[in-house]
This record gives sequence, structure tokens and C-alpha cells, in this order.
Amino acid sequence: MTELNHAQLQRDTLWMHQALVLARKGLLTTAPNPAVGCLLVKDEQCIAEGWHQRAGEPHAEVHALAAAGDRARGATAYVTLEPCSHHGRTPPCAEALISAGIARVVVAMEDPNPQVAGSGITRLREAGIAVTVGVLSSAAERLNRGFCARMRRNRPWLTVKLAASLDARVALENGESQWITAAAARRDVQYFRAQADAILTGAETVLRDNPRLNVRAEQWPLSRPQPELLRQPIKVVIDSQRRVPSDAQIFAGQSPVWLAQTVAERSDLGKQAEVIVCQAHDGRVDLHDLLAQLAKRGINQIWTECGPQLAGALLAAKLVDELIIYQAAAVIGDHGQPLLRLPKLGDLAKQQRFEVVDQRAVGDDWRTIYRPRYDAADV
Amino acid sequence: MTELNHAQLQRDTLWMHQALVLARKGLLTTAPNPAVGCLLVKDEQCIAEGWHQRAGEPHAEVHALAAAGDRARGATAYVTLEPCSHHGRTPPCAEALISAGIARVVVAMEDPNPQVAGSGITRLREAGIAVTVGVLSSAAERLNRGFCARMRRNRPWLTVKLAASLDARVALENGESQWITAAAARRDVQYFRAQADAILTGAETVLRDNPRLNVRAEQWPLSRPQPELLRQPIKVVIDSQRRVPSDAQIFAGQSPVWLAQTVAERSDLGKQAEVIVCQAHDGRVDLHDLLAQLAKRGINQIWTECGPQLAGALLAAKLVDELIIYQAAAVIGDHGQPLLRLPKLGDLAKQQRFEVVDQRAVGDDWRTIYRPRYDAADV
Repeated sequence: MTELNHAQLQRDTLWMHQALVLARKGLLTTAPNPAVGCLLVKDEQCIAEGWHQRAGEPHAEVHALAAAGDRARGATAYVTLEPCSHHGRTPPCAEALISAGIARVVVAMEDPNPQVAGSGITRLREAGIAVTVGVLSSAAERLNRGFCARMRRNRPWLTVKLAASLDARVALENGESQWITAAAARRDVQYFRAQADAILTGAETVLRDNPRLNVRAEQWPLSRPQPELLRQPIKVVIDSQRRVPSDAQIFAGQSPVWLAQTVAERSDLGKQAEVIVCQAHDGRVDLHDLLAQLAKRGINQIWTECGPQLAGALLAAKLVDELIIYQAAAVIGDHGQPLLRLPKLGDLAKQQRFEVVDQRAVGDDWRTIYRPRYDAADV
Repeated sequence: MTELNHAQLQRDTLWMHQALVLARKGLLTTAPNPAVGCLLVKDEQCIAEGWHQRAGEPHAEVHALAAAGDRARGATAYVTLEPCSHHGRTPPCAEALISAGIARVVVAMEDPNPQVAGSGITRLREAGIAVTVGVLSSAAERLNRGFCARMRRNRPWLTVKLAASLDARVALENGESQWITAAAARRDVQYFRAQADAILTGAETVLRDNPRLNVRAEQWPLSRPQPELLRQPIKVVIDSQRRVPSDAQIFAGQSPVWLAQTVAERSDLGKQAEVIVCQAHDGRVDLHDLLAQLAKRGINQIWTECGPQLAGALLAAKLVDELIIYQAAAVIGDHGQPLLRLPKLGDLAKQQRFEVVDQRAVGDDWRTIYRPRYDAADV
């Protein structure tokens, strides 16, 4: 790489960083679309910016081009995701950039959407525009990891959250589990719930804890900037035996509740309830089929709050992308309920292993984020 | 505090820090005595140093005075623990400091030994020596926390070490537990074993794992300086039902093995085995009585490696000063053996709570050091 290229890469990185900051503004609202930011730069000055706010509304590039007007001619566009080339609910952004006379486009990552997959970049190059791809690509991937997961493997990104004592018990023998962790940890959970398109739980948790599983603005963590707009995720309840009663608090809010069952029949549970009929596996909802159906419905990210049975089943099925454990510095003892119910393990060498990607104090509790180390062939 | 005093305190702190570094050299060998360091300073130059090496051998002050000779006259002595005033196995150090013509003595902390308890300081002051007490006192306390615990409460400092999966299972259902944690964690354990006067375990662990529980120089952690002299701690096995067989590996080394039983009778277990007869509590060794007897035998620090039953019993009896958990980033599931067996808990408010005092990666595993938060009245 020449000196000149190195200096250019430094400048590109700085501008792309700003475009990512813009993209992040849409994180809670763009689903099922990815969050995207766009910056127009001319003579090393930012002349316009845009970010995608909601599916069906203009893309980041369109906002930025509208703000720049005629000044866009000859500018460089920094976009956190490859501009689209297909007519979806909005016209293709690649054409808009060409028409506006953009001279150069810097893209953080290719669009994993098979409807785009490099064709936007090809279109720009055909029109004589210089295109650089891959600036801050891993940050861009992380930003839209749910969207990327859904596009590449037809399955949402799935996080399982558990709260336990230091001896990994999630409840007393009598089921009491409120509250093992303290207020700061429960606030922290609101931040993660808000980023999810769907909150997944099991009938067991609904029957035992009767949770609402909504995002509570008043409990937003003090350490995070309050978002302009909070979205209430869809709630998905795995209810193979159709045990969830119609008066459960999960139905109390405005957001849809999807009940995953192996049969369609269901007595009336109110207008926001809908049944997703899944394949059966040993008389229970097949988890792979459920996640494939949720992906088809545009769910990018799933946040799971459930008991040891479902958490163990998701892990054993190798469907967990991330495990987040809030751990209180207190003990419950062996009579308490276990963290994970898993098939019996006959050999330590066959343990599911994890990578610790983050560990920190949250109030008096400790939060650890684990990524399962699946064999490449399993994912 | 005047400016002058503040400058003096700064100088005193720097010298005392060096005296503590000296004291630390004796950490693995002075038991049942405390580790003590002494520095003689004249005209802001260190003229001699000494540290206590072994019980029965000269104290730190004596080494330093011998090294200084006549130059000691008019010097300031920095001592990490109050000089003794009683005739033990060696003559009183207070008298030696007076005879040598020391002008000023700076002491990190009073001796918690009721045979001293301020009388050494009084003796120095009576002889016209200026004495400052309390410089770096908390570091000095930490250095000899085992000795302090034994002197103040007639009970050694007791640490329980456990190794578990992230779902807090210490073994498979079939008992397999080698190795849940990796080599780096096992090396780390050697460092802690070496600091203990006694390693405590239960008959259950001896029968199941048949451990040697000795300090292995060849497994010394790479991150710690190799000590000049490793001492093999005494091994203490709680064997209420006299199940430990004479061919157990615990008897294989040269160091004594003390078997805690509720009755004296015992078939011959070799010359290094000795029975400690303890009071019975529900047919088992009374843990309070055992620890009191170990304190009487001069045990300052106990390192415990045991199963969930004994670990839980020690915790329930509020005898644990520190809990060290090595946690592997892997899961075993609910069929595995629990971390702690504890009496059934009917109310989350009655949980034993802990303070996290240290948490770090040790190789691929995570080590957390917890201190139980007992009510002040319990300790």
C-alpha cells in the first residue's frame, strides 16, 4: 500500500466511523431492515448525512442526497452497507447515487441480502464510480448481526439471557426467583430487550412467573442514552401443550404475541395473539422450524428469557448465538433450580465450550457474555 | 497534619513498603510465626535489612541489627509488625532495638498476639524511643491475615477453592471431574496451596479423586516468581466415618496427615498420620471444634479443596473467609454434581451474600474471589 493510500484509508475510516454512529440511531426501529448510515463528503467536509429510520421509509442514501441537493455532484458517499440495486418498497439507492453525480462510494460491507449481494457495487462501478469496499466491515457486521444472520442462514440471531446465583441456581425449590439479581441488572435487560425484534419464552415461564416481557422506558439503564423511540418487541411463546391462559400478563400490552404450537387449534386469546404452527419433534415444537419461520417473518434478533428447560434445549440444538448470564454474588444451594437442563453428559471431552466475549459488573451483579464454540459444520 | 509531618509520612510509607517486600520473602516459611520485615534507615539511606525466615530462628529486627552493627545507633527502624516484648524462643526484639541505640521505630501494625498487644511499643516508648504506629497497616494485615485471624479469634483463616463449569457443576454424574478447568488454573492453585499451613479436604474427595494435595514445584504458575523454598503443607482430612484407606495417595508424601475423627481409634495408617479427636455434631466432626484445634496447633491459613458437601457445611457454619472459584467456559447440565450442598432455602432474603474482591482470567478459565458477607455478630 502506498503512502497516499494509507492516508486515504485513515480518512475513510474516520468518516465511516461517523456513518456508523448515524446508522446506530436506527438500531431500535429499522427492523426487519438493517440499520444504515450515509455521509456525503466533499473537500474533506461533511456536506450531508442520512440514516434509515423505518422499513418502507427512505434509505440512508436518499436522506443524505436530499439534504445535499446539487452539492452532491462530485462528492464521496460513505455508506455502512452496500447500496441496494433492486426495486423494493423504495427505488434502488445505487441509481440515486449515480444520478446525483457522486464521484466515489466507500462501503463498509457487502449486503448479505441475496437480492443485492454485490450487484449494487457492480452497478456503481459500471456507471464509472470508484468504489471501495470493506472499511470498518467488522463493526458494520456487528451492528446488523441479526439481519446478517437471517440473510445468510435463514435464522435470526438468538441470545439467551439467564439470571442466577453464584452457584448457578435460577430459582429456589419453591420457584421463587424474584429477585435473584438486583435492580441494575434488571435495568440492563431493558436495553437488550429493546434491541430485539422478538422476545422468546416458554409456557413454563409464563405459567410460573407470569411476566409481561415488555420494554420499560422508566427502567432504562442509567448508563445508556435514552433512545428517542422505544419499540415493543413481538413476544413469542413456545406452548407445545397449549397451556398459556388467556389472562396471562403477556397478552396485556399492545404488541403481538405469537404462540408456537404443533397444531393450529386454539381458543380465542385476544386480537394480538396469533398461532404459528410448527413441525413437531418428540411431541414438542421443533425449534429449528420455529426459528426458520420467525426468520421468514422478518425477525432478525431474538432475546430469550426462559427457564432451564428451554435454555438447555436451545443450547443442545446449537441454536444459541450468545448466552448472557447475570450472576448475583449469593448462593442458593443444590435444592435450587438449575441454570440449564441438558442431556446427560458421559464424557467431559464432549462439553459444549464457550468463549467469554465480555464480563463486567452491573451494579452488585456480574454480567458475562458467552459465545458457544460450535464446530463450523454445525452453524 | 503539618507539612513536615506529611513529608515524613511519605518517606515512612516508602520505607515501610520496602520492609513489606522483605517480609513477603518469609511468607511460605515462617508459620506458625507471622512474616515480618525490618529496615534500618539513617540519613535517608537504608543501612541494613532483615526478614524473619523460620520459627525458632532470629526475628527480622535481629537480622537487621546484626547487619548494621554499630551503625544502628541513631537509626530509624521500620518494622512491619510490632517488635516483641516477651521471651519466646528468642529474646525480646524491643530490648534489642533499645540496646542498639535505635532513635525511632516505625511500626506498620500492633501485634495481634495477646502476649504482645502493644507492650512492645510501650517498652520502646518507656526507653525514650519515638514510635509511630499504623504506616501501611492494611497491607501488613493482609500479609499476615492467617496469623491475625488465629490470634484474634482462635481460628485460622480459611479459604475454600472450587472448580466448576459455567453452570456451576463440579463433576459429571459419574464423578468425572478431571479436568473441568485447564492447566493454567491448576498451576494457579499451586501458588495458593504453598501459602497454606494446612490443606483441608474430606474423606469423600479422598475416596473419589484420590488426590495427593501437595505443592508441585514443576507446576508453579509461570506468572509468579519461583520461591526459593517450597514447604509442603500439612494435610487435614475430615473422616468422621473413618473411611480413608491406608493406601490413599494423600499418605504418599513426607508431610503429616491429620485425620479429624470423632473417636480416637484408628488402625495403623503410617508414621505421618495422626488422629485429631474432635467433638461430634450430628455424628460428624464438629467443624468449629476442628478449626479451634488447628489454631491451637499453630495453623494460620487453611486452603480447602473438597466436594460440595464439605464446602456447603463450612459455608453454612460461617467458617469460610474466602471462596475462590475457577470457572470453565463450558456447560455440564443439571445431571452434573452441584457446587455446594446447602440446607434448603425457603426465602431468597436469607441467601448468604458475598463481595467479589477479585475476578480475572487464568488461562481459558475465570477466577473469582468472593468474601462472604456475614453479619458482624457471626464472625
